Amino acid sequence: SSELHPSEVPHRRFNPLTNSHVLVSPHRTKRPWKGQVDPPLIQQLPRHTKDCYLCPGNPRMNGEQNPDFEETYIFENDFPALLQPNPVTVPATTGKATAAGEEGNDDDDLFQTKPTFGSCKVLTYSPRHDLTLALMSPEEITAVIRCWRQVYEMEGKTIRDGHAVDERGSLESVGVEGLGDDVGCVNIFENRGSMMGASAPHPHGQVWSTSFVPEEPLTELRSLAAYRKTHSNRCLLCTYAQQEVAKRDRVVVLDEESGFVALVPFWATWPFEIMVLPYKRHITDLTAITEDEALGLARVLKKILTRYDNLFTTPFPYSMGIHQAPLPPLAQGQAQKTSDDHPAHFHIHFYPPLLRSSSVRKFLVGFEMMAEAQRDLTAEQAAQRLRDQSEVHYTESVK
Amino acid sequence: SSELHPSEVPHRRFNPLTNSHVLVSPHRTKRPWKGQVDPPLIQQLPRHTKDCYLCPGNPRMNGEQNPDFEETYIFENDFPALLQPNPVTVPATTGKATAAGEEGNDDDDLFQTKPTFGSCKVLTYSPRHDLTLALMSPEEITAVIRCWRQVYEMEGKTIRDGHAVDERGSLESVGVEGLGDDVGCVNIFENRGSMMGASAPHPHGQVWSTSFVPEEPLTELRSLAAYRKTHSNRCLLCTYAQQEVAKRDRVVVLDEESGFVALVPFWATWPFEIMVLPYKRHITDLTAITEDEALGLARVLKKILTRYDNLFTTPFPYSMGIHQAPLPPLAQGQAQKTSDDHPAHFHIHFYPPLLRSSSVRKFLVGFEMMAEAQRDLTAEQAAQRLRDQSEVHYTESVK
Ligand SMILES: O=P(O)(O)O[C@H]1O[C@H](CO)[C@@H](O)[C@H](O)[C@H]1O
Ligand SMILES: O=P(O)(O)O[C@H]1O[C@H](CO)[C@@H](O)[C@H](O)[C@H]1O
Repeated sequence: SSELHPSEVPHRRFNPLTNSHVLVSPHRTKRPWKGQVDPPLIQQLPRHTKDCYLCPGNPRMNGEQNPDFEETYIFENDFPALLQPNPVTVPATTGKATAAGEEGNDDDDLFQTKPTFGSCKVLTYSPRHDLTLALMSPEEITAVIRCWRQVYEMEGKTIRDGHAVDERGSLESVGVEGLGDDVGCVNIFENRGSMMGASAPHPHGQVWSTSFVPEEPLTELRSLAAYRKTHSNRCLLCTYAQQEVAKRDRVVVLDEESGFVALVPFWATWPFEIMVLPYKRHITDLTAITEDEALGLARVLKKILTRYDNLFTTPFPYSMGIHQAPLPPLAQGQAQKTSDDHPAHFHIHFYPPLLRSSSVRKFLVGFEMMAEAQRDLTAEQAAQRLRDQSEVHYTESVK
Repeated sequence: SSELHPSEVPHRRFNPLTNSHVLVSPHRTKRPWKGQVDPPLIQQLPRHTKDCYLCPGNPRMNGEQNPDFEETYIFENDFPALLQPNPVTVPATTGKATAAGEEGNDDDDLFQTKPTFGSCKVLTYSPRHDLTLALMSPEEITAVIRCWRQVYEMEGKTIRDGHAVDERGSLESVGVEGLGDDVGCVNIFENRGSMMGASAPHPHGQVWSTSFVPEEPLTELRSLAAYRKTHSNRCLLCTYAQQEVAKRDRVVVLDEESGFVALVPFWATWPFEIMVLPYKRHITDLTAITEDEALGLARVLKKILTRYDNLFTTPFPYSMGIHQAPLPPLAQGQAQKTSDDHPAHFHIHFYPPLLRSSSVRKFLVGFEMMAEAQRDLTAEQAAQRLRDQSEVHYTESVK
């Protein structure tokens, strides 16, 4: 392999998904790793609490009351960042939608505004206030995955209806070049822990649906489509995942049965960043995942989140996001017919901030914001440290 | 003007510098702004303290001792993210340097590594442990600006020497298309406050010099060069700054004498983000700033940092970064000759995290990391709130 494994030398790595670089400074870990060792955090959360707006039966900020749900529960965010389309309040696009490289006039192209619509939903993972995904069973996590699929299909339909053009909502019909303002996207993510802005410890994620394809998924889709053009229509992430499974040094958890792998990407930015994706077949979105595959994905999620928690014996904070086809296929038949050619490859990113202990995080600040992403240990070192962890959760081994 | 001022409607704005969008959700500020009001923070820091590694005369981690400096002081970071070029340890580039759109083979282009070199310096703004830029006089801040210019010239020369090719280091000779691995860049920035990863309260910034032009300045330079091509060779930022000075609604501080303006960019991401730049003439980098202009810039910096501190009566945390020509001109004469055509336009970004009080920040997390930048108040609203602040620092008006 022509691949470089420089564990001591500063270098840059290329991220082919986002088409950008990260500066890797592994020699920095040579300084005494005298990072704080914080005591294990054994949270004694109750199974249900009166003042949590996510617990079953409790009132929410808008006065509504949660039902006595038994698995998962979805509701509208009380302070949504996006609103439903409203012909009265949605203004027309102003400014010409010219990129910097196109011909344009001076004023308009520097003050471009576009109307948007969408919705924000909260997705409660469990009635239990004291659980996290790591502490739930694979079967319980599978219920969450089913809930993701359900909200993806439901919100995908709402976005298409908002555009009032069924056809334009279909990725198949517009192609990647046509992606943008009039396609829409269902964005499923989770902020876990107060360090990542989560307001409540009750296990939950969010779903923001947008009338446009946002910057990050759009950039990735463009890279995936460009790669196909120059690589005999092969999928970048299929190719990448298979090579990682063969190499093994960045793999954290492998579920051969379902074909899901969790790895620290070669181009990872966050210290213990992980990507979870299918490596045996090209899966475009949640609707294409079988029940067996969903259970395998659940097993992988439980294992990596347990390893995360065990690393610094603390509930590991992170932001998580699902990238897939922006909208679900219009009809099941159509999806099957075209899914092999569809550029999207289902994957989940985990961006956790901790670096040295439960309280010492990596700050991506001055240099990283103004110049370029930078990390202090290699992806290989991070994967090794995660592989060294037990798959039994520290709170359960203490019992 | 065709510009939209939607203070209640969610919309997207386009950032022509980074060629990307931000989602603006101004209706979110309609929720009761019952954000915490924290008590004014009157820090009683000593003028000099024994255990600060930045105070004059004190020992540093590597055992060296700081001199008794009277203005500014520059030294090597004890744990640098970048190292000087070393033919023994710097490996050859591996992987073909193909972008996703170019022809390439499967393995190599997914595992691309490039060697780098550079240096990391710490720049102490003042011998006084208890000062910040906001509390220093314009004359004292001018000394910091002179220090930035000095380190920019010094490090620019070192980077050129490292490449061992004088000519290739010159932006003039390579053009923007040629920018990249073998040009280099002097990156000047500051992390202020523990919330932004600053390890010491003693006023200081950093300078990381890189053998490559990092992602952020490279993206901006490409946008600036592309705009010139389609706008009769006019500068995007000259045009933009002049229009903002005419419109006024996003301007925070205007120094007509020196021609520097501080404004909340139309496409700002952080709640109270500010950009400082010259609007009367095209200034490519620190070496082109006159003494009078430097004093004007110092006045503007003092005023905006005072307004920042007054907003939540606390030392306002931020990350700050200077964007300019990646390297200083080879010779003064050459610079003068070509500076009008050079795409770079000197500017300073301030990215402060606070949103509602001295302890309530905006988290750019799940949606923002996985989908797109998002903000809760408009740039116009932020500029108005900053204009409403006094230019007398709250700690001095309390006296
Ligand atoms: O000031 P320090 O300790 O060198 O480091 C700080 O700034 C650097 C550059 O933005 C970051 O990489 C670090 O994560 C941050 O803690
Ligand atoms: O969970 P919340 O309170 O809606 O909000 C959290 O996630 C959002 C989406 O990533 C961010 O915009 C907020 O800054 C963050 O605090």
